[in-house]
Amino acid sequence: MAGERLDERQRRDWLRLMKSEHVGPVTFRQLIARYGEASEALKALPALAQRGGLKRSIRLYPAEAAERDLERADDIGARFVGVGEPDYPPLLARTDSAPALICIKGRPELVQTPMIAIVGARSASAAGRRLARDFGSRLGRAGLTVVSGLARGIDAAAHEAALATGTVAVVAGGIDVLYPPENEELQRAIGERGLLVSEMTPGTMPRAEHFPRRNRLIAGMSLGTLVVEAALRSGSLITARLALEQNREVFAVPGSPLDPRAEGTNRLIKLGASLATSADDIIDALSGLIERAEHEAPASEGLADEDGAAEFNAAGEDHRDRIWALLGPAPVELDDLIRESGLPTHVVNAVVLELEMAGRLERHPGQRLARLA
Amino acid sequence: MAGERLDERQRRDWLRLMKSEHVGPVTFRQLIARYGEASEALKALPALAQRGGLKRSIRLYPAEAAERDLERADDIGARFVGVGEPDYPPLLARTDSAPALICIKGRPELVQTPMIAIVGARSASAAGRRLARDFGSRLGRAGLTVVSGLARGIDAAAHEAALATGTVAVVAGGIDVLYPPENEELQRAIGERGLLVSEMTPGTMPRAEHFPRRNRLIAGMSLGTLVVEAALRSGSLITARLALEQNREVFAVPGSPLDPRAEGTNRLIKLGASLATSADDIIDALSGLIERAEHEAPASEGLADEDGAAEFNAAGEDHRDRIWALLGPAPVELDDLIRESGLPTHVVNAVVLELEMAGRLERHPGQRLARLA
Repeated sequence: MAGERLDERQRRDWLRLMKSEHVGPVTFRQLIARYGEASEALKALPALAQRGGLKRSIRLYPAEAAERDLERADDIGARFVGVGEPDYPPLLARTDSAPALICIKGRPELVQTPMIAIVGARSASAAGRRLARDFGSRLGRAGLTVVSGLARGIDAAAHEAALATGTVAVVAGGIDVLYPPENEELQRAIGERGLLVSEMTPGTMPRAEHFPRRNRLIAGMSLGTLVVEAALRSGSLITARLALEQNREVFAVPGSPLDPRAEGTNRLIKLGASLATSADDIIDALSGLIERAEHEAPASEGLADEDGAAEFNAAGEDHRDRIWALLGPAPVELDDLIRESGLPTHVVNAVVLELEMAGRLERHPGQRLARLA
Repeated sequence: MAGERLDERQRRDWLRLMKSEHVGPVTFRQLIARYGEASEALKALPALAQRGGLKRSIRLYPAEAAERDLERADDIGARFVGVGEPDYPPLLARTDSAPALICIKGRPELVQTPMIAIVGARSASAAGRRLARDFGSRLGRAGLTVVSGLARGIDAAAHEAALATGTVAVVAGGIDVLYPPENEELQRAIGERGLLVSEMTPGTMPRAEHFPRRNRLIAGMSLGTLVVEAALRSGSLITARLALEQNREVFAVPGSPLDPRAEGTNRLIKLGASLATSADDIIDALSGLIERAEHEAPASEGLADEDGAAEFNAAGEDHRDRIWALLGPAPVELDDLIRESGLPTHVVNAVVLELEMAGRLERHPGQRLARLA
């Protein structure tokens, strides 16, 4: 299925599966790997959750709701793209946490260009906004698409500067929800001349917990992330951390130690980010990566292949107890769980999936698992 | 002789030899290694220079002039200290270009403390001066002696902040020549409560070519060098380069790419200097070095031992021609010269010394030599 387009029914079922209870990006892939089709996975979910220990019925996203979502996207000139489909950002598809579907509006060809994220403080200084504009327009002219989060301050300045060459705005809510209000016009412009991206369905109001997820997408689709002005403990530093976790480049604009808006960027440089004072610093560092990306075939990652399906099989009650006993509130690595349980990989995978469907397990980055209950 | 005090006559002869024509720091050591005493080296110089090809007499610094220099130092409460003597800065003594004698005034015990250089732009901003003061006082309270060049701007701010805990000013002219005028009071204060250091004799007016030499001393006696505000192509970057050449730590305070006074420091960080936003960054990085320095015996480096003397012997005319032919205006390494000449090391050393005394050779860092004539 990878690399091919979903048909209409598959897309609806993907949306249903993605929005069903306890189904995250990793679980989604495992379910497709196990059951082949989203429709089959949806049928299997209630029994899986029950075996995992859920006392009530698992909540499946209704077919009608998914159909409404797809219609609403169509009404606003947007559409849903599945991981592995041609218009899905290839670098994002390679990340562990790639959403099964994203909603896009605008020029989908931008997803095939090399991208650089520019993020930073909402309460940016005039100097910071000027720097974001300089970086945005110069990186744009150098052939990079500028990705950001459509926030006030640095994000908006970077988008504006790159509107002429190509910019992608990843928004935290539905792509038709104009937020923040001061960027309404910019959001409309990007929906026409650039590309709007969201993992939410249209009409979703952005909530606080959506923003870190949005940052994950920004870092995930970009070769590198540039942070322009950021305080300590800011969303921009989270984006930088996510970029590092995905082995992407991180750049930071330095500033005076007397400027609190430079504390975050100076700290990033101390921790190993590359100091960037001009677009050339970034172009030089990324040029090798850009060439490699251009010579690669379009990404066909996204979903595990048929071989993966063999890894899943029904598990016995005693296996489930043994694995549950090995889990705690602190995350453990899946490999350790397999080793310490003494059980075959496919058995552990099956139990983990069941426990997850029952809402008793939480996935952490790096294939680590923790008890939720 | 290393580690012992010079007697009065030796000190006078060292001063004569150091100030005689064509005698640089490296040559000084080689002459002492070859002849044992400065008085013997002085006697040998005319013949050496003649063999090297000098058509006139080499200019020796007169004994009376050296005696006047020593008296003048005494009159102003200063004195000359030879490399290897107890009051000579131990880290400086380990550098290739350590002056044979330095003139000091103030508290000589400061040379035994761990030192940090703080340098930067004369045309510093108010923010830069504030940072220099912050770093100076905090590093001082942490037990580091602050070394700088008594220039306006960053240097003066760092000295002032560290006057209470201990500061060393290395001046480009004689230590009794008050320069620059606006730092007159500060220079007097450091001569009493801190330590003034110069490789010039008292009364010497500072000239442009003295400043890079002064920078060499600043970097040479310090465990590390911190650059606060510096333009590209500035003296502070030279000091940083000298520190790197001597395997010392280099720290730089970052600044906005829009601030031309941060171009030099940002560039240093790109090239590998450590980004410093607070004194703790420096203390953390140097703490290991400071402990090691405290557990080491006082430096007894400075002069080659008796073994070195065996390396020198008279050279024949044909040897001299062969070596001269291998030299050009671009510096070559001494090791290459030895290999390509096919001559024994002691012969090459002897010819190099003669050519140098004749003013036909220039020494470059890293044991490299070039034709001057």
